[in-house]
Amino acid sequence: MINKLIENIKKTGAPIVVGLDPTLKLIPDHVLEKNYKEYGANLEGVSNAIFEYNKTIVDSVYDLIPAVKPQIAMYETFGIPGLVAFDKTVKYCKSKGLVVIGDIKRGDIGSTSTAYALGHLGKVTIEGKDFRGFEEDFATVNPYLGSDGVKPFIDVCKEEKKGIFVLVKTSNPSSGEFQDQKVDGKPLYELVGEKVNEWAQECREGDYSQVGAVVGATYPEMGKILRDIMPNSYILVPGYGAQGGKGKDLVHFFNKDGLGAIVNSSRGIIGAYAQEKYAQYGAANYGDAARAAVIDMRDDIASALK
Amino acid sequence: MINKLIENIKKTGAPIVVGLDPTLKLIPDHVLEKNYKEYGANLEGVSNAIFEYNKTIVDSVYDLIPAVKPQIAMYETFGIPGLVAFDKTVKYCKSKGLVVIGDIKRGDIGSTSTAYALGHLGKVTIEGKDFRGFEEDFATVNPYLGSDGVKPFIDVCKEEKKGIFVLVKTSNPSSGEFQDQKVDGKPLYELVGEKVNEWAQECREGDYSQVGAVVGATYPEMGKILRDIMPNSYILVPGYGAQGGKGKDLVHFFNKDGLGAIVNSSRGIIGAYAQEKYAQYGAANYGDAARAAVIDMRDDIASALK
Repeated sequence: MINKLIENIKKTGAPIVVGLDPTLKLIPDHVLEKNYKEYGANLEGVSNAIFEYNKTIVDSVYDLIPAVKPQIAMYETFGIPGLVAFDKTVKYCKSKGLVVIGDIKRGDIGSTSTAYALGHLGKVTIEGKDFRGFEEDFATVNPYLGSDGVKPFIDVCKEEKKGIFVLVKTSNPSSGEFQDQKVDGKPLYELVGEKVNEWAQECREGDYSQVGAVVGATYPEMGKILRDIMPNSYILVPGYGAQGGKGKDLVHFFNKDGLGAIVNSSRGIIGAYAQEKYAQYGAANYGDAARAAVIDMRDDIASALK
Repeated sequence: MINKLIENIKKTGAPIVVGLDPTLKLIPDHVLEKNYKEYGANLEGVSNAIFEYNKTIVDSVYDLIPAVKPQIAMYETFGIPGLVAFDKTVKYCKSKGLVVIGDIKRGDIGSTSTAYALGHLGKVTIEGKDFRGFEEDFATVNPYLGSDGVKPFIDVCKEEKKGIFVLVKTSNPSSGEFQDQKVDGKPLYELVGEKVNEWAQECREGDYSQVGAVVGATYPEMGKILRDIMPNSYILVPGYGAQGGKGKDLVHFFNKDGLGAIVNSSRGIIGAYAQEKYAQYGAANYGDAARAAVIDMRDDIASALK
């Protein structure tokens, strides 16, 4: 799957992933109202509004981008109907040729991690027939439980030719509380990065591996070090845009081949219509505003990488 | 909610939580076959089989135990239909007076953690009306992202009078890979424990807090130290039974008041019928086997605590 991602990145010239993280605040009123009228002002109505919102955005930008990253929490918050919207979104994005990174940050022990991996990246067999729960191409994984918690995901990735991004250094302000703690003089995130590199060697597809890492754009200096520690891992970089990361901060997340990183923006794209910069589109044309924001992001990153 | 849990523990005399972690291997054939016949040999059939299996076990043991802990991965692996079984299980257990600990191990940043917290412990408001996604009483939380990732759960706990158990030292063999790393001479799990104690002080209900911790039964010496570091936190102890922990290992997880810990067993209870010790019940009476296993576990722990 990493090669499909790289192929998509080369085709679009945009190492960009659009975070499909809908919230009631971000979805324009006219979309909510229409769906409340049709399905009720309840979880069903929200579920349908989310899917319509996502679909419009995807229809507006899919030819410009290699991948999307739905954050499952934003769907799970609406219970089963919310997760139905997640599932429909994943399937729709795949039908448009996009690579889908499920931002699920799961992680547990042994057979429990296997259950998550099968549910999101693999399949279950019932009376000899295969069924898929959710159907992402990649998933994000939390490493706090150690190899026991990550290896089951890697096993499923090998079987299914899918991939994971392991949280190494997250983009949030308090990520250092545990991740930066020094272990024998080295921050914990480096130790996690070294493990990611070990895991990555188990499932290479050419230069890159099915095992990537998450490193926040908000910590460019650490990104530089982690880039060297995990040379064969793609780095998924959140924190661009709304969280404060800029194009110039991203240079060191990339390898010399111009590959090796993919940068996420969520609110900055899907909520572009509500920003002053794209206000001329108006809420009615939120898809066009998202397209303009994607083009600007692509150009910002391209000029930084020159 | 911690006081409801303590009340239930006192009433039953059993600091026990039954892990409702169904797998296709654990569910007796006659239950699967019946549901496949009625709903199809597919995800719907499995979903209904899981709920029937859980319901029979709950009906057989609910008067003996204070709480249950469904592991959401075992449901999520079957996609939306699996999560429908999770939701029905949570609601059914609550209708029987049980405290429900959602073993979800979620954790993300800021507004994303808020979304998880609202979806599992809180509510969302749509056009002035409240809706609940899932409805657990407690949730387990992964601390790797730091305070940013945990605080949103605590805020929702305060609002809803619900609780969380933060992963401190997990029961699996490789938990030490990161959790045991020494930071200024102290293992990381102690640092996390200290943070848990800080968070716990924010939402006490008398002697105990809505913020508890997860510490594996498989590491009793560490449990002893962590007990002292987090005096007001309930410790949720996995790893008893199938993972190797025994009653005598559990003594130090409890406070001098005889409270402060609740011990989980999953396969050891729900799969008791398949063990030699309870084979006389047969697969047809898996509920009775579970009841016998709960009584043995309760007595094992009670005699260790004497």
